[in-house]
Amino acid sequence: LHTIMVAAEVALLINVVFSVIGYFLTIKLIPSFAEHFIVANLYGRDLNKKSDKKVPEALGVISYCTGIIYSTVIDLLLYFIDNLLYTCREFIQFIGALLSICCMIFLGFADDVLNLKWRHKLTLPTVASLPLLMVYYTNISNTTIILPKPFRYIVGSEFDLGKLLIYNVYIIGLLYYLYMGMLAVFCTNAINILSGINGLEVGQSVIICISIILHNLVELSGPVAAYHRFSLYFMMPFLGTTLGLLRFNWYPSKVFVGDTFCYFAGMTFAVVGILGHFSKTMILFFIPQVLNFLYSTPQLFRLVPCPRHRLPKFNPETGLYMEINNLTLNNFLLKILGPTKEQSLTIILLCIQAVCTAAAFFIRYYVSTFF
Amino acid sequence: LHTIMVAAEVALLINVVFSVIGYFLTIKLIPSFAEHFIVANLYGRDLNKKSDKKVPEALGVISYCTGIIYSTVIDLLLYFIDNLLYTCREFIQFIGALLSICCMIFLGFADDVLNLKWRHKLTLPTVASLPLLMVYYTNISNTTIILPKPFRYIVGSEFDLGKLLIYNVYIIGLLYYLYMGMLAVFCTNAINILSGINGLEVGQSVIICISIILHNLVELSGPVAAYHRFSLYFMMPFLGTTLGLLRFNWYPSKVFVGDTFCYFAGMTFAVVGILGHFSKTMILFFIPQVLNFLYSTPQLFRLVPCPRHRLPKFNPETGLYMEINNLTLNNFLLKILGPTKEQSLTIILLCIQAVCTAAAFFIRYYVSTFF
Repeated sequence: LHTIMVAAEVALLINVVFSVIGYFLTIKLIPSFAEHFIVANLYGRDLNKKSDKKVPEALGVISYCTGIIYSTVIDLLLYFIDNLLYTCREFIQFIGALLSICCMIFLGFADDVLNLKWRHKLTLPTVASLPLLMVYYTNISNTTIILPKPFRYIVGSEFDLGKLLIYNVYIIGLLYYLYMGMLAVFCTNAINILSGINGLEVGQSVIICISIILHNLVELSGPVAAYHRFSLYFMMPFLGTTLGLLRFNWYPSKVFVGDTFCYFAGMTFAVVGILGHFSKTMILFFIPQVLNFLYSTPQLFRLVPCPRHRLPKFNPETGLYMEINNLTLNNFLLKILGPTKEQSLTIILLCIQAVCTAAAFFIRYYVSTFF
Repeated sequence: LHTIMVAAEVALLINVVFSVIGYFLTIKLIPSFAEHFIVANLYGRDLNKKSDKKVPEALGVISYCTGIIYSTVIDLLLYFIDNLLYTCREFIQFIGALLSICCMIFLGFADDVLNLKWRHKLTLPTVASLPLLMVYYTNISNTTIILPKPFRYIVGSEFDLGKLLIYNVYIIGLLYYLYMGMLAVFCTNAINILSGINGLEVGQSVIICISIILHNLVELSGPVAAYHRFSLYFMMPFLGTTLGLLRFNWYPSKVFVGDTFCYFAGMTFAVVGILGHFSKTMILFFIPQVLNFLYSTPQLFRLVPCPRHRLPKFNPETGLYMEINNLTLNNFLLKILGPTKEQSLTIILLCIQAVCTAAAFFIRYYVSTFF
């Protein structure tokens, strides 16, 4: 047991070192590829700026490539150095998670290049999450769903998902699968619709990522440390490469990240939430995205007209202001605050995200003890 | 044991049914996406035709998507229906193989969109084969390399790769890894450089695929049936979707397949060859590609000037003819045969491929008994 713990610490250390290298690799790779993207017709124009310069789009791919290569290399190394760390089933989960993320990023990049339709945006994450659900099944006999107290009186105190399936009580098992599939769809799209101003998509991902890392570190001393170590293996290289990306995406953006990045980030979060068995806590870190989604529903379901981009209007003198009342969190803030500089709006939104994280920790570690 | 055999047969049957559906799905999806590709600037012009029409490029992606979704769904189904079929380690190999293929196709699509440089074409398959090598390690203790007779006198009759690594005799183990990595690079690029006329890339892949399936079926009654069943799970949906693609890529091409397809096909072959433990037999199916590669080396290593496309010239009256002596198998044939219609040249090349397959079976099942 002592050897395993030492190996685990060495593994985390290697991971930290590689994540730092990942940051520097990203900031080196992005400028060298940016021109390629413009030549390939992958660029956008910044609607909130005076200039009409071409800004390369979909650069999230670089961050992803660096991240996934890193995860694979690190994992390869760790597996060679010390296979004490993994049981075969944990290893399956690791590869299955990588496969889901890889599928998602590929589909996201296809979306950026081909400009797919809205219905594809819902089906693609579902397809990409199949490998994830597949590997989840291999671990299913260990999964116990702890129900909130009110439900326990109805169905008994806990579920063993494996037994449920074995004893042919499929329904709740299938519902749980449905929940996981929907989580993947939600995470990928939630980040994608809280966007449109410089640095927002990447900034919120960084804060969510840091929140998850903090949660994992707290739980590392707990009884389910293995799950949280698993999550850290994904979250640390993600943080490294995403910070690298943020440097270029921050106001004024030198690159746009594209749907690729939003899908990549969302899928990575869904993967660690599901396989790390803390999906409920993770949803708490998505409070601003949930609010934005709920506020957007009238437009998303076409009860109110919905333009292709729901951006605020730009005035070179005063900054961003609200012209049409598009139902997004960005516009809601502009409605309250009046015209605001783009950079200030991003910072305000990121502060809200950070405050929500604090609230999430309060709910997770204080309020939840009552239920 | 009897139950396992029945389950295996049912699994293969399901796989055949899904592969047929895969064919029809591909021929339905390709026309509906073709316009998207042209809008996204992904098109080429057919240099060997009179008309200057835009032909959508990189449509191999569709075949891939259908293929991979199929493999995943089939696998998911099988795993749920009957997990007698898989041990945990076999399952790891399955997912690892999918991950390698998925990485490769993503990198191939990025290449099509971004037009990467030659040095990337060598590094990308190496990176994509990492997951493959990783999962190979999990099975390494079962791997015995059977050396050809002349070597046996030098090093002894067989190697146990696992023991080699355990007993610190790393060198031969690492050489074998190097060989596998190079196989992936070779397979992906070999198909990519024997190309340039309608239907050739897809046609040769179909013939190689059929050869592998025949080899697998022969070996299904042998002692290593499990490996060959593994290969069939990949090869059958591949054949279905690739035949669908061939319908549109055959002379006169309605779509081009792009590097995406060549990478996808090459990686799939490398994966089944390596994890199915018949990589040497598989190289025999690549005889025309090996010859083309050897013949091309002076240009590939820039000893002789090498243009971006090494296509023959087109004359509307007589067909294709050789203008500059580009060192490819296509040009070599034109040198012998004189001006030839494009379609005839493709058919001749595919016949050579089929003859080589026959020769490969002869070598594998007759000549090899002497060594």
